[in-house]
Amino acid sequence: MAIFSRGRASDPGAESPSLHSAPKAHIHGAGPAAYIYNIKGDFEMLQGSLREPAIAYETWGVLDPGRTNAVLLFTGLSPSAHAASSAKDPHPGWWEDMIGPDKPIDTRRYFVICVNSLGSCFGSTGPTSTNPETGQPYRLSFPLLTLEDIANAGAEVVGALGIERLYATAGASMGGMTALAFCLLHPKLSAGLICISSATHSLPFSIALRSLQREMICTDPAWKNGNYPLDKEPFTGMRLARKLGMVTYRSAAEWESRFGRERSEDPNVDDCLFRVGFEVESYLDAHANKFIGSFDANCYLYLSRSVDLFDVANHGGTVEAGLRKVQVQRAMVIGVESDFLFPLHQQAELAEGLRISVPEVDFRALPSIQGHDSFLIDMDRFRPAIADFFSERPRG
Amino acid sequence: MAIFSRGRASDPGAESPSLHSAPKAHIHGAGPAAYIYNIKGDFEMLQGSLREPAIAYETWGVLDPGRTNAVLLFTGLSPSAHAASSAKDPHPGWWEDMIGPDKPIDTRRYFVICVNSLGSCFGSTGPTSTNPETGQPYRLSFPLLTLEDIANAGAEVVGALGIERLYATAGASMGGMTALAFCLLHPKLSAGLICISSATHSLPFSIALRSLQREMICTDPAWKNGNYPLDKEPFTGMRLARKLGMVTYRSAAEWESRFGRERSEDPNVDDCLFRVGFEVESYLDAHANKFIGSFDANCYLYLSRSVDLFDVANHGGTVEAGLRKVQVQRAMVIGVESDFLFPLHQQAELAEGLRISVPEVDFRALPSIQGHDSFLIDMDRFRPAIADFFSERPRG
Repeated sequence: MAIFSRGRASDPGAESPSLHSAPKAHIHGAGPAAYIYNIKGDFEMLQGSLREPAIAYETWGVLDPGRTNAVLLFTGLSPSAHAASSAKDPHPGWWEDMIGPDKPIDTRRYFVICVNSLGSCFGSTGPTSTNPETGQPYRLSFPLLTLEDIANAGAEVVGALGIERLYATAGASMGGMTALAFCLLHPKLSAGLICISSATHSLPFSIALRSLQREMICTDPAWKNGNYPLDKEPFTGMRLARKLGMVTYRSAAEWESRFGRERSEDPNVDDCLFRVGFEVESYLDAHANKFIGSFDANCYLYLSRSVDLFDVANHGGTVEAGLRKVQVQRAMVIGVESDFLFPLHQQAELAEGLRISVPEVDFRALPSIQGHDSFLIDMDRFRPAIADFFSERPRG
Repeated sequence: MAIFSRGRASDPGAESPSLHSAPKAHIHGAGPAAYIYNIKGDFEMLQGSLREPAIAYETWGVLDPGRTNAVLLFTGLSPSAHAASSAKDPHPGWWEDMIGPDKPIDTRRYFVICVNSLGSCFGSTGPTSTNPETGQPYRLSFPLLTLEDIANAGAEVVGALGIERLYATAGASMGGMTALAFCLLHPKLSAGLICISSATHSLPFSIALRSLQREMICTDPAWKNGNYPLDKEPFTGMRLARKLGMVTYRSAAEWESRFGRERSEDPNVDDCLFRVGFEVESYLDAHANKFIGSFDANCYLYLSRSVDLFDVANHGGTVEAGLRKVQVQRAMVIGVESDFLFPLHQQAELAEGLRISVPEVDFRALPSIQGHDSFLIDMDRFRPAIADFFSERPRG
């Protein structure tokens, strides 16, 4: 039984558990529009392997007879493969404004594939999946996960669809790193690359934040060293981690204009959490309450660590040498001025490094104020950039 | 018995408890150089009152016969009154480079007073202190604490020393806000004001971070709604809160230059906290382990909330009206470009607001890369600024 977890989670009115009560557990899984591809045989990872892992993916548009119009999309840490609505699943996807007829990635012209990351919990094999050798969930016996493994799992789907060359591979945040890993590891498989709010590696500042998020989960007694009942997640740790995530995904300027020092009618003000009752505190509660119960804690830990582990320099000794392995014809690198998790200078460095081997590199620095998450929100700035790439009319 | 807690805590080799073991509990209290002043009678707070609360303070230099050379210093959230070493207490203080003979605040010319904040745990009355009416520690029965209360407690010390007019009142971070509150509430009591890396109010971004730190502590089961044994603090929550604090006190640029992606020889890499073993993770561990056990959790909660509550606009309806109540002759406002907790534009706004009523306002924007904590580290930039103020040779 597959319940569309993300759709439920993104409905702001669907549930508002009080701060101390555990939310209803969701059953993780693929959405109703998802296909499941089971990789044949043993899937070798950087360390260890998985037997016939499943990869969930959704598609939009039609693959043309020459199989030349496919676009592969990798996600950030937490989304499912449901990037956009479709007849099978009318819930809005996480990049609803970008994918569809007459949208920047026009599905009348392109065949879009979005994969749920290996190690996630929306249909792809991950720590919540049953290990066929034991009949038990993998939990922490799941192998060390890297973005290279996620990229290779995506390549298996591409191969299974009979696609020999993608029009483009794209992703934002962790997905941008995964798209970069994909083009490094499979230099002939994609003609184009789009990296949004991403980087060749994580900086110590963002590593510190993610490491701290993981520690919040692992020090929650309910985590039980990864052996929590799947319907009794470490909600306290997940709530703290998600709140810190929200702080790092947005920007101080956006919050100043949205919240200022407004007080909320939050009934939790006197709940002994030493809260003041500011609107921003209620906002974080609402976001955390939507997240917990819709994402598995062990999956979060594996995926979060994979972002810290990624380093293009692992592919050739230096970042420059690693980037030289990228053999796409065109690349677009987009960054946002207010992003302090993947700061703009990292996208500038990525674009500069790609210029060595990529004939056409388009670098866009956008003045969005929504921070790292701008690609999900500031569509007025992101739509034209993405549309430029897919218009097949190279600039300049 | 008074054990010099801060001195122990700031000795990096003194203790390195493993990540999961509880550190030895420290007995909080004033240092050997601290004086204790007991405020006479009931001390009225914004909400509630305390009976004869104690305020710990240290002094350096000699009060001149006219009592005109006194400088009052308020601290950030966590330091004690031990701002500098002295014959009675040779341990380096938290502003050791700034206070002393021939130093920017030259103790051959000035009489420096540093108070431990009301509500703290280094000799001043706070949540760990015994409520004389019950014979039990106050814990959460301690009244709501505001920076105005801390400022007023400082004014009591000034009055007890027979000082009718201070040469200057100074502070950084929370201490800068407290100094501002002091000058607002006691417009005749100080001729000068120095606000460093401070603001007229907290922004929603920094409120979110502090609220999250408090939630980390309050959701630690060991907190027990504030009723933990004083030698068994909520170490997990305090460790998380301190680590997040360190992230917000420094800057990404500093960490990039210090740590990059260096791996450490940290034995805790495989401790199931999903750590990678980066140097920056070990650095946060070391800082957190020094902090926990040296600072009381309930005190932390009260002081942290007082920073979020402070707003100059509460003194007159608007920030501008509030600042007009400051009647000092000279003010210096210092901010740091890399500070994202109290960003530079907040100091610029503070300086601009002070110009309405203060004849001489000197605003310094320093290019330090150590973020909010620069005033403790980048002494080469801070010393000349502070020295300028105390040279009695007004600029321009």
